[in-house]
Amino acid sequence: MTKLEHLKERLAVVSDLNGAASLLGWDQQTYMPPGGAAARAEQLATLGRLAHEALISDEIGELLEAASAESTGSSSDSDQSCLVRVVRRDYEKARKVPAALVAEIARATSLGMEVWVQARKDSNFVAFQPALRRILDLQRDLAHCLGFEESLYDALLDQYESGMKKSELVRIFSELKVGLVPLVQSISERLDRVDDGVLRKVYPEAAQWEFSLEAARRLGYDFQRGRQDKSVHPFTTSFSVNDVRITTRVDEQFLPTALFGTLHECGHALYEQGVSQNLERSPLASGASLGVHESQSRLWENLVGRSRGFWKFFLPRLKQAFPQNLQDVSLESFYRSINRVEPSLIRVEADEVTYNLHILLRFELESELIESRLALADLPEAWNSGMKALVGVVPHNDAEGVLQDVHWSNGLIGYFPTYSLGNLLSVQLFEKAQAAIPALTAQIENGDFASLLDWLRTNVHQHGRKFLPSQLIQLATGESLQAAPYLRYLTNKYSEIYV
Amino acid sequence: MTKLEHLKERLAVVSDLNGAASLLGWDQQTYMPPGGAAARAEQLATLGRLAHEALISDEIGELLEAASAESTGSSSDSDQSCLVRVVRRDYEKARKVPAALVAEIARATSLGMEVWVQARKDSNFVAFQPALRRILDLQRDLAHCLGFEESLYDALLDQYESGMKKSELVRIFSELKVGLVPLVQSISERLDRVDDGVLRKVYPEAAQWEFSLEAARRLGYDFQRGRQDKSVHPFTTSFSVNDVRITTRVDEQFLPTALFGTLHECGHALYEQGVSQNLERSPLASGASLGVHESQSRLWENLVGRSRGFWKFFLPRLKQAFPQNLQDVSLESFYRSINRVEPSLIRVEADEVTYNLHILLRFELESELIESRLALADLPEAWNSGMKALVGVVPHNDAEGVLQDVHWSNGLIGYFPTYSLGNLLSVQLFEKAQAAIPALTAQIENGDFASLLDWLRTNVHQHGRKFLPSQLIQLATGESLQAAPYLRYLTNKYSEIYV
Repeated sequence: MTKLEHLKERLAVVSDLNGAASLLGWDQQTYMPPGGAAARAEQLATLGRLAHEALISDEIGELLEAASAESTGSSSDSDQSCLVRVVRRDYEKARKVPAALVAEIARATSLGMEVWVQARKDSNFVAFQPALRRILDLQRDLAHCLGFEESLYDALLDQYESGMKKSELVRIFSELKVGLVPLVQSISERLDRVDDGVLRKVYPEAAQWEFSLEAARRLGYDFQRGRQDKSVHPFTTSFSVNDVRITTRVDEQFLPTALFGTLHECGHALYEQGVSQNLERSPLASGASLGVHESQSRLWENLVGRSRGFWKFFLPRLKQAFPQNLQDVSLESFYRSINRVEPSLIRVEADEVTYNLHILLRFELESELIESRLALADLPEAWNSGMKALVGVVPHNDAEGVLQDVHWSNGLIGYFPTYSLGNLLSVQLFEKAQAAIPALTAQIENGDFASLLDWLRTNVHQHGRKFLPSQLIQLATGESLQAAPYLRYLTNKYSEIYV
Repeated sequence: MTKLEHLKERLAVVSDLNGAASLLGWDQQTYMPPGGAAARAEQLATLGRLAHEALISDEIGELLEAASAESTGSSSDSDQSCLVRVVRRDYEKARKVPAALVAEIARATSLGMEVWVQARKDSNFVAFQPALRRILDLQRDLAHCLGFEESLYDALLDQYESGMKKSELVRIFSELKVGLVPLVQSISERLDRVDDGVLRKVYPEAAQWEFSLEAARRLGYDFQRGRQDKSVHPFTTSFSVNDVRITTRVDEQFLPTALFGTLHECGHALYEQGVSQNLERSPLASGASLGVHESQSRLWENLVGRSRGFWKFFLPRLKQAFPQNLQDVSLESFYRSINRVEPSLIRVEADEVTYNLHILLRFELESELIESRLALADLPEAWNSGMKALVGVVPHNDAEGVLQDVHWSNGLIGYFPTYSLGNLLSVQLFEKAQAAIPALTAQIENGDFASLLDWLRTNVHQHGRKFLPSQLIQLATGESLQAAPYLRYLTNKYSEIYV
């Protein structure tokens, strides 16, 4: 057995443990009875610890050295060169963090989550403040362990978006802000142009469920290698390239929840299902980063799912499912209703145009917090004035303001920006696919997504985690990540709707 | 930290790994898409190997010694004395089996299962013979590793029924046979006394499902700490004392399948849910043996579920669920129909009276096979003549004869007898409960099972795996395992039905 094969065998054990842990997580959010929670937490902690120990073992370090020597001469984008490179990065990062700090972070975030739930319920930021302070302190410790060159924030960001820097975010997000703020202001003066009442009738759950399954099937989601279940918060998870599951939730009073929820998760799942089988049971059998992952979910949800062409095909089918609600609705009116813009307080309910402004605010605030340039006590006020300046609305209380998201209570600093990176990238990729497939618009109008999926598989999915996000984006689009295409897309689309 | 606490911590890791593996197994049989199978097998193998390695580590050996010294003086039935005793037994057994043999058995049974599936489909025992030969050879090797005093068979039997011996089985089963064969012959002359046509109407799945949930709830199954799902083969599994799940299957053309399937699995689940919380996350948090487990499933399925009193309460409810099928059915006629006896070929479809004869046959044959007193080539003929002598019917082919059960292909030798041990014990326990609860019959007629469950919890469930089956039986009933009560129960019940 070569050293590389030996290394792969060891990594397969890590992969098995992580896959098992993911199934435990899936079950926790779908079918687990309430009584199972305590034991589940212990089981997840044990699997996580064993996977971590297996990864940071001295043996892996030695095998990495030896396998690296073996693979000298093989092309730098071969599976094996990439494996050694990526695992070495994971390994070195994991070795830098003392077990005691990992445990301390787990404790503080577990407590933080609990305190946050209650604080949000009471709309009382002050009650959450001490827990958040502790979490931020530990994240700073973590950043120092991981190390950074330019900015402390970079160390945390790198966990979710490998190789990305805060300075790069500042550059991209500034351009985005300059374009978005006036666009939103202009639309805000014409909000009455679009009415979405048709989406707010009663849509029975069973028919919504069937329609979402049919849409996922049409997109190319393979139900032999996946399934859809219900959960409170929709998510995608995978235990293997050949077992990638999605969840959604259904709101009988609001059609888009399940519909676009499924399209979004389906985008994530198509990515995971499209990773090369050669990477199965290795640390490369996943997406390149959270940002690249989000580009896939947003591409299918928004670029495809909120397009005229998509509904040219699907609206007649939707009418069959809900004849009473939809019989008199024209394609044009339906298209406008699902693209309604409304500056609002809650990120997860935001439309395409305002969504990224919510992210810009979080990025600004969390980088100031972690770099101690903003006092915790001033956070709610900074949030509210930021919302006013960016989106044009002001929260009435902390629950619909600074306490709305779970992320910070969970210790996730540097995570929010990946949502916007994904939005930007989704447009860059879609434009390249359009250029490569002249008939794409016509295909989508016929419910045929095979060429698009094929293009994404070839240019993005199959590579899994082989490349850094920036490398993958360069490979797939021939350019770096940019705000301009996204701004152009939004401006074109929405100035037509909000004339 | 004491050595005992340290030991418990190590064992908790084993328990977490086994719990995780059980969830993976549950998912495999309930929701896993077909594509997930290959990765799932790897994940299960990894978890199994890690759990095994964690158990047989030298450290556990040393901690066992030290903890044993610490617990000198504490009562022999204390949780900690039992823990040390049971884990030492598990540990010593596990250390006796070389990893290479474990791997070889896994390979041979995996292949054996595959070959068996095809051989059964083709009804061709000869095709299965080489695989079965290999499996039996390995089981003999295993028995020699484990060690035995009287009989090689004892070593294998002990894996499923700790402390039980073949000589004891021979004694009990001989008595059982002497009583059963004439009883079956006598009933066989009066088969037309009972008609079960009423159970073979069309019973829609959804209503069957609801009724089975309602029955489980009434029995005392806690849905906050469990749930019921569908699977091809019904089973019970647990990942914690507080997460014990059952499955069932529904046959729209045969009411008893789901109904008694749920009662049976519910019996297993009540046992697991009743284990003391003090034993959670330890190797004692399970049933004492397969036989004791089966006593619980059979007690609820047969002693309770096929009694007049049970249906005095439930038949009116069943009529509400299926008014068209059942409106004219009397309690007496329904009682007779669910207790219909028919000598038949397939074990899993057998009634209470003939069931144990199927087991006696398997016990005789597998003990002769493993002791090389029966040639493999002669097995089908031995099976068929045994069926004729015991049950009075003869298979037309191997598929409905010697190839019907999965057990041998899976390497399970010494497993079958536990089904009968469970049947015998169910009556002994039920008689003791009746003696202890004078109002029991009246309670059951009112759908009140609380006293019965409470008695079982106190006398059986709470102890988990603390005691050997023989000790537990002595504790709960004041006597050893016996055939006479079971024979008396069958004779009384069925001579009344088949007058």
